[in-house]
Amino acid sequence: MNIVIVGLGNIGSYFYNYLKKNKKVLFNKTNTIPNILFVSAKSLNKKRNLKIPQKLWLKNCLLAPKIKEVDVIIELIGGAEGVAKKLVFDALRNKKHVITANKALIAKYGDQLAKIAENNKVNLEFEAAVCGGIPIIRSIKEGLIANEISKIYGILNGTSNYILSSMDKNKLEFKDSLLKAKQLGYSEANPTSDLNGEDVASKLKILTALSFNSFINNNSILVEGIKNIDQVDINNANQLGYKIKLMGIAEINNNKILQRVHPALIKNNSYISKINGVLNAVIVESNPVGQSVLQGEGAGPGPTTSSLISDLCSVLRGNIKFPFVVSEKKRKLASFDSIDNKNFPAYFRLDVKDKHGILSDIASVMAKNKVSIKRLIQNPTKDKKIASIVIITHRGKSSSFVKVLNLLKLKKYIANNPKFIRIEEF
Amino acid sequence: MNIVIVGLGNIGSYFYNYLKKNKKVLFNKTNTIPNILFVSAKSLNKKRNLKIPQKLWLKNCLLAPKIKEVDVIIELIGGAEGVAKKLVFDALRNKKHVITANKALIAKYGDQLAKIAENNKVNLEFEAAVCGGIPIIRSIKEGLIANEISKIYGILNGTSNYILSSMDKNKLEFKDSLLKAKQLGYSEANPTSDLNGEDVASKLKILTALSFNSFINNNSILVEGIKNIDQVDINNANQLGYKIKLMGIAEINNNKILQRVHPALIKNNSYISKINGVLNAVIVESNPVGQSVLQGEGAGPGPTTSSLISDLCSVLRGNIKFPFVVSEKKRKLASFDSIDNKNFPAYFRLDVKDKHGILSDIASVMAKNKVSIKRLIQNPTKDKKIASIVIITHRGKSSSFVKVLNLLKLKKYIANNPKFIRIEEF
Repeated sequence: MNIVIVGLGNIGSYFYNYLKKNKKVLFNKTNTIPNILFVSAKSLNKKRNLKIPQKLWLKNCLLAPKIKEVDVIIELIGGAEGVAKKLVFDALRNKKHVITANKALIAKYGDQLAKIAENNKVNLEFEAAVCGGIPIIRSIKEGLIANEISKIYGILNGTSNYILSSMDKNKLEFKDSLLKAKQLGYSEANPTSDLNGEDVASKLKILTALSFNSFINNNSILVEGIKNIDQVDINNANQLGYKIKLMGIAEINNNKILQRVHPALIKNNSYISKINGVLNAVIVESNPVGQSVLQGEGAGPGPTTSSLISDLCSVLRGNIKFPFVVSEKKRKLASFDSIDNKNFPAYFRLDVKDKHGILSDIASVMAKNKVSIKRLIQNPTKDKKIASIVIITHRGKSSSFVKVLNLLKLKKYIANNPKFIRIEEF
Repeated sequence: MNIVIVGLGNIGSYFYNYLKKNKKVLFNKTNTIPNILFVSAKSLNKKRNLKIPQKLWLKNCLLAPKIKEVDVIIELIGGAEGVAKKLVFDALRNKKHVITANKALIAKYGDQLAKIAENNKVNLEFEAAVCGGIPIIRSIKEGLIANEISKIYGILNGTSNYILSSMDKNKLEFKDSLLKAKQLGYSEANPTSDLNGEDVASKLKILTALSFNSFINNNSILVEGIKNIDQVDINNANQLGYKIKLMGIAEINNNKILQRVHPALIKNNSYISKINGVLNAVIVESNPVGQSVLQGEGAGPGPTTSSLISDLCSVLRGNIKFPFVVSEKKRKLASFDSIDNKNFPAYFRLDVKDKHGILSDIASVMAKNKVSIKRLIQNPTKDKKIASIVIITHRGKSSSFVKVLNLLKLKKYIANNPKFIRIEEF
């Protein structure tokens, strides 16, 4: 089997070295030798911790799909558009197997790509695109194949989980925790998609399609990131017996799928609240197996290579499968639900100018809009003129919460934009 | 693909019903229809919650391997010998794929069976033999295929874990907790192998061979069960910040594999100490992926069927693999180590006749044999003439602990057989 590796960043370099070192091990496990035919990267002259023989260099990676001898193309460029997109489409059209770690590409064009792969009877594998080294895709497609999945959720982004864990453990503000993550190499130079929830959203959309045999849905998904979480919220959560985690959740109720990515307060004695640092964890609820949990390293060259090699071995063994579990024709035009129809408890933090009668006014606004208060704590702040009111509500409608928030924003006694975080009852 | 199901207990019946109901779902996922050609069970007239057409009944299951049309035999009889053994050997020899949930059979004859399967190019699949619905075998063979495993361990038996959890949670003695487990259907009529560690040992031996590409080793394994754990030990462990769990652990150090099954004190803030009830959890430490955790239902017809179907789909897809990851010729004649060469801390409980000078004598016996005391608690017992001395030691040699135990047993002030439980530092 002749392989072309395209992209030689951290992951590509690690993968190249792994493959060179472990050729024999992989042959023993698959009965096929993975032969690196070419490698390609944007800049050939860049200094890398790699010794690559001159004859392996392919200057223009877009030629790879046209080379007859090529069997498998490993795409490690990244990004939903540009070269990565062209390369993967061309590869599948030319009947080359494709293995990619590119979640943005799969989340955006996965359905189209899967159709081409299926028609051309080649593999399109993307284990490395979701949760680094956790074999979640293979588990859905193979280990848990018997099961009807009703819910899949978890911590799907290591960077944001590290930031939240570190804010909690080291009492840091968001920006300081982000700085620390960057210093430790847990955050990319541009961590936008880690922080605004888009990275989790890409992964969740892929998991949703795999879990419910639906097509990828880019429209019906709530995406909120962690940038608005303050140290004081983390601290309040602790006082109340919760941790704050960035969750990706997909579930099916009454034949409607709900996808959402947002920070949530999670009971501090639950399994998910104890997943700290750069770890990822995925929980699958399905019938007949019940609840399955998979936990592991969510990112980094080692874990990602573990997933890429798992995909490669599947290709080497000739284990051709539908990229999204079932044939394109059997995938469902599922209905998607909106968070507006979901009831949940919530956390409010209202920084108010400390005046008489405020509490009763807030309570009245909530009561009139069917938001029922379960717990209320009033904390003093450093600025003595401002008090911080923390409220945990009973389950309520999303629309009610939105109304309350909009009404409260208009109140003159509100000092800062009110904080609102959903509570998940795992 | 024509299937014969042999054995119609809880699992066999559930599996039969599942397969009948989900034929189309499985076809969509594998492109092949699993057709139940025959079913067979010891007693055909037994009352079952099943409606099986007369024409499906095969009176003598041992005929199945000789029927030309049969492709796959699902063995759900159980037991390492007798009919199950003969059926599986005959099936593989006659080039039928075999799927089994029989851990005793695989632990005893897995190597021989794998060799026949490999030579005859058929599948021998046994995901259901280890940890019910957790796809641990598929994960080792596929999802984590890139990795060199250094340690695999966990809670591999739901019955014993339920008993220990319930002793802890409900302050029950062992025999009352066992009774409760039986009432709730969490324990078989004859739970001997669950309680004496043999069930875990079978699973661990299989996992060891899969993880380290070794042959199954039935000799070099320490096996201790949970029958000697008293409520007072659970209570002491709690006081000291530990939980008691029945662990199965296989690890490789200096090219030597150590397999062991025994109860252990585990820090109560560790992941594994929080796995309660009938849950199972497996932790795999490997390179390059790091630590992977898989958790789920360890037993019962639903989870076991989930694993059986996963195996069946692998067969239906034509995904033929070496039963133990690599070819028989590539499996290693590994060296196995003994627990005697392992250093670990330990828990002692010494019930002593409350006399002057005892503590100093115990301390002296330990010191002379290089067992170093880290913590010591003396508790009064209901019988006022007896005091209970609980000792947590620093890391020490197994042989030193054995010497100390043997010496203490001879002391006249020792009222009951001394308790000794290893401490695992996860």
